[in-house]
Order: sequence, then C-alpha cells, then structure tokens
Amino acid sequence: MSSTVDLNADLGEGFGVWRLGDDEALLGVVTSANVACGFHAGDPTTMRRVCAGAAATGVAVGAQVSYRDLAGFGRRFIDVEPAELADDVLYQLAALDGIARAEGTRVRYVKPHGALYNAAVGHEGQARAVVDAVVAHDPALPVLGLPGSALLRAAEAVGLRPFAEGFADRGYTADGGLVPRREPGALVHDPAEVAARAVRMAVEGTVVAVDGSTVPAAVASICVHGDTPGAVELARAVRTALEQAGVALTAFTG
Amino acid sequence: MSSTVDLNADLGEGFGVWRLGDDEALLGVVTSANVACGFHAGDPTTMRRVCAGAAATGVAVGAQVSYRDLAGFGRRFIDVEPAELADDVLYQLAALDGIARAEGTRVRYVKPHGALYNAAVGHEGQARAVVDAVVAHDPALPVLGLPGSALLRAAEAVGLRPFAEGFADRGYTADGGLVPRREPGALVHDPAEVAARAVRMAVEGTVVAVDGSTVPAAVASICVHGDTPGAVELARAVRTALEQAGVALTAFTG
Amino acid sequence: MSSTVDLNADLGEGFGVWRLGDDEALLGVVTSANVACGFHAGDPTTMRRVCAGAAATGVAVGAQVSYRDLAGFGRRFIDVEPAELADDVLYQLAALDGIARAEGTRVRYVKPHGALYNAAVGHEGQARAVVDAVVAHDPALPVLGLPGSALLRAAEAVGLRPFAEGFADRGYTADGGLVPRREPGALVHDPAEVAARAVRMAVEGTVVAVDGSTVPAAVASICVHGDTPGAVELARAVRTALEQAGVALTAFTG
Amino acid sequence: MSSTVDLNADLGEGFGVWRLGDDEALLGVVTSANVACGFHAGDPTTMRRVCAGAAATGVAVGAQVSYRDLAGFGRRFIDVEPAELADDVLYQLAALDGIARAEGTRVRYVKPHGALYNAAVGHEGQARAVVDAVVAHDPALPVLGLPGSALLRAAEAVGLRPFAEGFADRGYTADGGLVPRREPGALVHDPAEVAARAVRMAVEGTVVAVDGSTVPAAVASICVHGDTPGAVELARAVRTALEQAGVALTAFTG
Repeated sequence: MSSTVDLNADLGEGFGVWRLGDDEALLGVVTSANVACGFHAGDPTTMRRVCAGAAATGVAVGAQVSYRDLAGFGRRFIDVEPAELADDVLYQLAALDGIARAEGTRVRYVKPHGALYNAAVGHEGQARAVVDAVVAHDPALPVLGLPGSALLRAAEAVGLRPFAEGFADRGYTADGGLVPRREPGALVHDPAEVAARAVRMAVEGTVVAVDGSTVPAAVASICVHGDTPGAVELARAVRTALEQAGVALTAFTG
Repeated sequence: MSSTVDLNADLGEGFGVWRLGDDEALLGVVTSANVACGFHAGDPTTMRRVCAGAAATGVAVGAQVSYRDLAGFGRRFIDVEPAELADDVLYQLAALDGIARAEGTRVRYVKPHGALYNAAVGHEGQARAVVDAVVAHDPALPVLGLPGSALLRAAEAVGLRPFAEGFADRGYTADGGLVPRREPGALVHDPAEVAARAVRMAVEGTVVAVDGSTVPAAVASICVHGDTPGAVELARAVRTALEQAGVALTAFTG
Repeated sequence: MSSTVDLNADLGEGFGVWRLGDDEALLGVVTSANVACGFHAGDPTTMRRVCAGAAATGVAVGAQVSYRDLAGFGRRFIDVEPAELADDVLYQLAALDGIARAEGTRVRYVKPHGALYNAAVGHEGQARAVVDAVVAHDPALPVLGLPGSALLRAAEAVGLRPFAEGFADRGYTADGGLVPRREPGALVHDPAEVAARAVRMAVEGTVVAVDGSTVPAAVASICVHGDTPGAVELARAVRTALEQAGVALTAFTG
Repeated sequence: MSSTVDLNADLGEGFGVWRLGDDEALLGVVTSANVACGFHAGDPTTMRRVCAGAAATGVAVGAQVSYRDLAGFGRRFIDVEPAELADDVLYQLAALDGIARAEGTRVRYVKPHGALYNAAVGHEGQARAVVDAVVAHDPALPVLGLPGSALLRAAEAVGLRPFAEGFADRGYTADGGLVPRREPGALVHDPAEVAARAVRMAVEGTVVAVDGSTVPAAVASICVHGDTPGAVELARAVRTALEQAGVALTAFTG
C-alpha cells in the first residue's frame, strides 16, 4: 500500500521591507503554499515573488485569506459582517489569482489565516462567508481546513470539495480536536516526535492524543510552520521522515 | 454622418462608511465606469455593489488603479519604483476583475487615477509600469488616458490599444494640453458651455483653446466628474446635449 | 433648582477627502466634542481643524479612541489583547492631545468609540485597557461611558473620575439598559419626543422605559448623533428644549 | 582636549509581528534613538517597549517622523502638501511623546526618516512643514539633520536649535555632500575604516572625501545603521573606537 500526503505552510507573510520566514527554503520542502494576500501580510511584490517561486518549483498556490489586519497579523478575531467578509475574501482571492496567473500558475485552493481560520471552526456565518467567496470566484476551488470545522461543513454543503489538514506539532484531544495553545501538551517540540506523528497521520490516518488514546486523523495535508526559529529544519525533518516511510508527497489538489 | 462617443466617470470612490459621489445616479448617465480598486478608495463591498450596478445597466467597468494612498485619495505623487508599481497595479486590476466576474461582468479597460494619471503623462517609468501590469493581466485590455501621454505611447509600443479621452469642463492650451488647475481658464463652469464643448469634441473632434484657437481633440471618451456638487446634473446635461446632437453614446470598449 | 447638563457628539469623523457629519454646525450646538483620533476616522488635518474649532467655540475636546479599523469605522469588535489595546489608546490619546495643545486647548476626557464603547460595557479586560491608557497619559482625565459599564467601574477602581452619559434618542429597558438596536423601540425618531426625553434626563434624572416604567438616568452628559440626515437639526432641537426648560448647558468637565 | 559626540540609530522599526533590527542591542550602543512613530513603522506597543528601554538605559528618544507609508517603509518621496505634512508630523511627534512620558522619558529631538529626510534636504516646503510641526509641539525641541539642509536652515530661521549629523559609513563628495547611493564610493564597508572615520569626525570634525580631499564634517551626532546584517557589530566597533580615542559619548541633546 502506498500513501500520499501534502505538506502545506504559510508563505509570503512579509510586508514591504519586513520579512517573515524563509519563503525560498520552504518552497523546497512543501507541496502547497498558503500565500498571504495583502490583508494580514503580503504586499503585491512579495505575492508575485512567491507565486513565481511556486510556479518554478511546482508547489501549489493557495490563497491564505484573512481579516483586514496588518497591525495584528490577522491573529485577532474581528466581528465582520459575513456579507462584507465574503467581499473581503473574494477581493484577496481574485488579487492573488491574478498575480499567480501572471507568473504562470493559478490559485489551487483556499485556506483562511489565523483568527479567521479559528473563527471558521465554529462561527457559521463567517465560515459561510469564506465559502461564498470561493463559490463566487471559482466553485472548482477546494477549501483546506480543520476536520469537523464549520468551514468544511459549509464547503461541502454548497458543493465545494473540503480537504482536512492535520498538525504534526500540535497536541490532540481524545475527541480529535486540538489542545488549546494555553494548555499543557498543546505543542510537540521534539523534531523526531513531530516527524513520527506526521508519518503516522499519513500512513495510518491516526494520531496519539494527550491522554494516550489513538484518534482518527485522516488528513489530506499536514501543516508545517515556517515562521519560527528552526521551522525550516523541522519541516525538512518531517518531509524526510515521510519520504523514508514511503509516503509520496504531492499537492492535495492533484 | 453619425458620431459615437463614450462618457466615463469615476465611481465607487467611497471607503467603508464614507461615500463620495452618487454612484447610482452616475450609472444612469455614463457608458464607462472607472471603478476604484481599494488603493485610493473602494472597499471590496463598494466595488462589488458598483460592479453589480454596472452589470445591470450595461455600463463598462474600468479599473481605476492608483497609488496606495487612502489618506491622500491617490492625489499625491508617490515615487514608487516602477517594478513595485506594476505589481500594485496588477493586484488592483486582478481584484476588481474578480469582483466584476462575480457580478457577471469583467474589467474592460484600465485608467489610472489622480496623481498616477498625472504622473503617467510624463513619467516614462511609471507609465510603463501601468502598461506592464495590463499586459501581465490581459493584453487585450485597452488603456484610457490623455492624448499624447507617456501612458498611451507605452501602451501602443507594447501592442495594447490606447484610447484618448477629453475633458469638456477643462480649458485647453493652444498645443492641445490641459490648462494647469492653478491657472485662469483651467475650468469651464457653465453647464451649457461644457455640454457644447462635449458635443464639439464628439462631432468635430476639436476643442476651442483658451487663446481662441481651435485644436484637435479626437477622443474616444469624454470624462465627466462625479464627486462635486452638481456633478450629476452636469453629467446629465452633457449626455442630453450629445443625444440631441445625434451622437450615439456607447462604451469605447465596444 | 437649576439643572446643568452637557451635550456631546462625535466630531472629526471624516478621513482624507471623505467627510462625515457637519463638524462646524455641531460645534455650535454641543458642549463636548468626541474627536476621532485616526484609528477609525480622523486624519491629523481633520483633527487639527476640529480642535481649532472647539477652541474657538469653547467646546471641550474629548478623545474618541477606537480600535484600529478604518475600513470598518471602528464598528466591529476586535479581540485585541488588552496590553496592546492600552498602547493603541495611549497613542491616539497622546496624538490628539498634542494636536489640541497646538490649537490652544487640551483633551479634557476620553470616550471610546463604536465597538470599543460597546465592548467596554462588559469586557473587563478591554475596559481596563482603556483605563490604563488614561492613567498612563493623565490620571486627571475623566472617562465618559454608559452607566453601570465595566469601563466606568474600572475607571472608578483606579481613581479616575467616571461620568455617565444618556441617549435621548435610544429606548431604555426597565432595568436602565439600552434596548438593543435590532429590537423594537430601540430608536426614538420623533424630534419632539427626543427633546422631551433629554429635558427629563437633565431635570429629573429619569427616562421612561419601553415598558412605560420610569427608570433612573442621572447623567452628566447627553449624547446626540451627528452623522445621520437631520442629525444637526435634532441636536439643535434638543439644545433648544433644554435651554427653554432652564437647563444650563456646560461641558461636564467643568 | 576632550571631544564629545552622540551616536544615533533608528529603533522601533518593526510593525506588529514584524521586527527589523535589534533594538535591545542597539540601546546598549547608541546615545540617541530615532524611534519610529507609526507612519512608516512602529506600532504603539513597539514604540512603548523602545521608550521603556531608552528610559532604562539613559538613551535619548527622538521622533523619527515619516511620510504615511507602511508599504514603502517611508522610503518613497510623497508629494504631500506642506500643511498636511505638518499635521502628520505633529500627530506622530505628539503620539511618541505621550508614549515616552508614560515610560518616564520624553521626546528630546526630531529627525525625519527616509524619503522625508532626503526631501528635507532640498524641498523648502516640506522642510518647513517639519519645522512648523516641531514649533507647534515644543519650540525647545532641536532638529537633527544633514549639514546644509533646508531642514536645518528652516529650523534655525524660526529659532529651533539645528544639529548636524554625519555618516561614518557613507562616502562624502568634495563639497561635503553624500555620494549618491548608486555611485561608486557611496558606502564604506570596512568596519575599521568606518570606525576610523567616526573618530576623525568626532575629534577633528573632518572626513576624507572620495577624491581624497579633506572636508569639514563638524557634527553633533554620528548616525549608525541598525537594520542590516552586522549592523550592531559595526555600531559597537564605532563606539569602541570612539571610546578608545577618548571621545565621550553623550546624547547631543545634553
């Protein structure tokens, strides 16, 4: 039996003179790049450079849509009306897709960023707003999110393809959710353990929860982080472990 | 002999809670709408509403691209590097085009706004940047600008279709340029005279300069302003006069 | 017995080319001006013009501090960390105070705007953040807010002077709260009734609730709105009714 | 004979999640910190942290005022009307001063940033706008700039104290100006040479120009850069060389 999985990371999260993470290095590791679209990060020149890099390396470009919040990096919940949020998301998605086209590729999927990602887990209105924007832009675009989230349910309800992602460096609860960041066990720090968890997700579709139980984690993609010290090395370790376990790394969008 | 001309105006120049001009009224007057794309004005919800209105009334949507300058409404020259400016313009153009598509229409042309419009008259680098962005997005899109401008020359040089516009309410110099705003004769205030000048541009392709001489003004489109008191009435007067003179009003983009 | 009350309204809520409300007219009606500080509205030039007008007319300047949200006009809750919010508020407060000083006056009080005002009713952390910023800037500055709010409690707890305001055009519940905007009775539209309610608040310190009961509304200031059609006329009607009832109009800050 | 000089550097030039340079390290090297005020960089929390650090280490805080241009980091000339620019500068200056006061210090001087610094060398209107803002805020505040600049002339003309700064890592022309960045000799890369030039400026008040001639460079402060790789080490080398040459390092503001 041969397994396949996608590795995704956030790219293009600088703005103007400011850089965050090592886009070039990550393009050599991941198969899908969640590219910031200008609302939490990502000026047009950065977006274009990342799209060019993704096109050159065969990495799939995803639209990492966000609240309009440069000062907060999109990490703060904003109680935007869903109708306005849908327009904000459509604007970002279309802008990135145009830039991707200019560099010989296209936006292949949509993944909300930061606080919008978290809101879309349970906030039906905002989850639906993201989905509405995707439908308005291109109903063939899939959505990447947390298994069981309002986002993936809303996507499925309107006929979009929902894809689930897992987090090899996050602790899981016995019911398959993520351990909140403030609680013990929220983060897995040991690279070898992170890599082993990624392999298990890809090969067995399971993860060991904080209470020791084994819970299902059938995911199309595994998210690795790019903006912390040692992030690129950790991502490489995950990739190498997956390859050594015989897992094929391919963009989930095919 | 039957003449044809286009009437264009700036629309969607509010931002968030703020409004500027009467978009709904102008959609009943013009044949082409220069829609703000978010950098000097125009939040995504406003952009979408204007695109929906333009689609419903058969008005052609143009991308009114600008410097990134909400505080200055894009009216201040910014010495942006051409390569970055091209990316900024591409971002705006793609965003508006995506929103237009979601409302059943498309961006049909590009016209720079404010200080970028003025810069593109003589600043070869910035004019070329605008053109580069249009080429990157869609080489079939025409560019609307001042006759004789660096913008229209750069457009023509790379194979884009350049279209010239005239200003019925602006004074012209004997060499066919616009009288600078600070000089006497810069503005024509009398509605009847403005309307008569519009008719003359459309029918004869000429305008009477401030020194009384007749100068060529063969324009594909006549620009009317929408953001001053009485602007909509003036635009209506121009349209009525053109219709009474037997001039057909049609979007220059065909 | 002679009564005294303050009339406050939001001023300076334009941004760049955009205007909102009639600042000049309102300066002739109110005794306190809540001046936008640049985060939800209010560019520095607008701030300075309003401060100059307030200085000339003897109107007290208040800092109308907000979330950083030009696109949403500060009307959307943002889940900012209190420590960062305190810094944002301090920045706005100091900026306005400096501009006020340059025009011969000073910031006399602080009143949060929009969604931050609403959050500060019940969100202890954000209410405390506003108070912390005021203490850091000038512990002699009073805070204006909703009676019973977390904001006024937090202010009192650290030794700031809390002042309560009433809304003559808003419906009240039997327990003295405001009727939510989506419910019937939320708004009082009849100018005569609004004026009469203002007089009753100022003279008797009560208001008639939606259920007909009389509830306490001892307020130091009455808020009138400036950004809706007819707003200035309504504000004038309130002022005239108060004067005719023998109520002295004076800034609550003394 | 004992010499004295000031070392200044740009600090607080991050924004939100983004960092630039090593503020903490630089606070241990410089005697004056040009702190970004939010228009080209510098969110309120960053501003406050840097002010707290400056207060703790005895470093003088200067307001590094800028064009409103986060996307361009204030490095692009903007043709702002001087009256508006003065208001923008006053806003930034007052905001930083308020934050500095909250941390137990004050703004001690003003130094424009980036493109505004360059504009203020020769653009009389914008130079005067900066000076007008300083006068409006506090006529006792000195201004730091390029010797011979319109800024220092305008400052002197209205009674502000002008202070000149030198650049130990920049090439000088025979007439005492800086070699433009695009020309050969614009930058001095060798740390030992940079340090030696700093010492010569401080002790002799001269610098060796690109043509080998010795030109006057009597400066109150020497600017070191903090945002390039190796910048902190270079700044330390300059400081050490100055100390070893017996030059006392003290804030120029006394």
